[in-house]
Amino acid sequence: MNSNTATPLYSPDPYPSRVAPRPARLDRLDPVIWGAAGKGPLDKQALARYERQGYLIMPALLDADEVAGFSAELSRLRHDFAASGDARVIAEPGSGAVRSIFAVHELSERLTALFRDPRLLGAARQILGGDVYLHQSRINYKPGFRGKEFYWHSDFETWHVEDGMPRMRALSCSISLTDNTENNGPLLLIPGSHLSFIACVGETPQNHYQTSLRRQEYGVPDDLNLADLVREGGIEAFTGIAGSVVFFDCNTMHGSSSNISPQPRSNIFAVYNSVENTLGEPTCGLPPRPQFIADRRPPTPLRPPQE
Amino acid sequence: MNSNTATPLYSPDPYPSRVAPRPARLDRLDPVIWGAAGKGPLDKQALARYERQGYLIMPALLDADEVAGFSAELSRLRHDFAASGDARVIAEPGSGAVRSIFAVHELSERLTALFRDPRLLGAARQILGGDVYLHQSRINYKPGFRGKEFYWHSDFETWHVEDGMPRMRALSCSISLTDNTENNGPLLLIPGSHLSFIACVGETPQNHYQTSLRRQEYGVPDDLNLADLVREGGIEAFTGIAGSVVFFDCNTMHGSSSNISPQPRSNIFAVYNSVENTLGEPTCGLPPRPQFIADRRPPTPLRPPQE
Repeated sequence: MNSNTATPLYSPDPYPSRVAPRPARLDRLDPVIWGAAGKGPLDKQALARYERQGYLIMPALLDADEVAGFSAELSRLRHDFAASGDARVIAEPGSGAVRSIFAVHELSERLTALFRDPRLLGAARQILGGDVYLHQSRINYKPGFRGKEFYWHSDFETWHVEDGMPRMRALSCSISLTDNTENNGPLLLIPGSHLSFIACVGETPQNHYQTSLRRQEYGVPDDLNLADLVREGGIEAFTGIAGSVVFFDCNTMHGSSSNISPQPRSNIFAVYNSVENTLGEPTCGLPPRPQFIADRRPPTPLRPPQE
Repeated sequence: MNSNTATPLYSPDPYPSRVAPRPARLDRLDPVIWGAAGKGPLDKQALARYERQGYLIMPALLDADEVAGFSAELSRLRHDFAASGDARVIAEPGSGAVRSIFAVHELSERLTALFRDPRLLGAARQILGGDVYLHQSRINYKPGFRGKEFYWHSDFETWHVEDGMPRMRALSCSISLTDNTENNGPLLLIPGSHLSFIACVGETPQNHYQTSLRRQEYGVPDDLNLADLVREGGIEAFTGIAGSVVFFDCNTMHGSSSNISPQPRSNIFAVYNSVENTLGEPTCGLPPRPQFIADRRPPTPLRPPQE
């Protein structure tokens, strides 16, 4: 048994990760669809597809005028918060260029209105079965030419281990403000991967090879389980014109290749979590992450504008 | 004027690069097709396409049996040359896994026979107009999950500056032994880019920002010219089943994104150069690179097996 193990191997945690010396593939114990057709904008087919794939792509859900408006809002935010020193702003070390801003629902009425838009909030409420709140929101700007790769991961693995999110009852919504093509490092998703929880290896075992040490990171799924997931489900790229939206389950395995194309990519990102799934203690024993990354306050359910 | 400039700004060199403090886009001064239809396996349409695009994709040029045979040969070479200490073998620092072997035409009769196969050699002779020799050959093995990005570049820029290749009368031929999909980091080509020579900036100007310094490398085309080339020509990925082949002009801008998919990629790579285009002195003033990277010996024209 690994002396670094933080909690017992047979813990009551339904989704143990980073505690055992070997990776494991565990069954999902939670529903994917918590609501029902007829209770929101998604029809039966769309819900069935989301349930089967673990995600749903909605081409051009926002029209060109909306895209232009939100793009202007992103430019404004990036300009206003550059060099602000605000912890919510993630800037590039050298140039100071703003790459991400977190908790934008606290910074922008326009974006808050978008997060309450029935097309997004209605779908989130329908999938998650009732009231939801924003676990996290952010805007991302990825430059062309030197856009970095983002390796495969399940958001839920991180949120469970580092934020103490109890169950799989959250979803992400990514709203593209730029065209996504096969060649500019689009989001890649593994269909069906949301039905398994890949428990990642924990603290490095003592006899591990040094070459593996260099690559060791927390929450990285192992090669064999990833290969199985791709063999079973394939890989789908989220491509489409600006204004396209993807909803994906908190446990859907996703990542992206690097982007050497000249086309930059920007998007708006929101994580809806059920009010019945609020955060507990991180399972890894570390202190919780900052509130702008994982909101731990008593949840305020999001309501559509008319209510 | 930049004090680091190695040769005069207005040198007689038709393709000056890495000598001026600013990038430049220059016209190609050489033909793309040096031969003619009727003198090889490519018909008029194929030649016209190569001339316009700067490359030609031949789906499944090798059949499944050939692919299996060459894959076995690659496995044998990787096994035999692992830990050999041979300079032609490029291994991963930590694991020792073989990533590339250069000058494989000196190491494998089977691969030499492939390089003399009329489907490949015939096309090369037809495009380059007469006798050709191998400037370089290699096999590549790129693992899945952690396949590295390769940034945009023109091979000719390197071969001209570092190897002293005088003119654009060479081509590369890449033979895929694995399936290439949009999601496993395929070769990306910019159609039409072969018609311009992008002169890259030379030694770093004294007043350059430190953040740029970190990224500075030799032979890297600049963002503005790359953006122009992509705006004019787009980007095409070389995808297709194992056995597919791409011929591309020595000056076609190409690169690849990282590969996070589980699928490894392996290929065989040959550079055919016209016997009338043998290497001179490197224009950068540095000593020539090793022979297994750029053959400087009096050329022996490659002949098809029957001759």
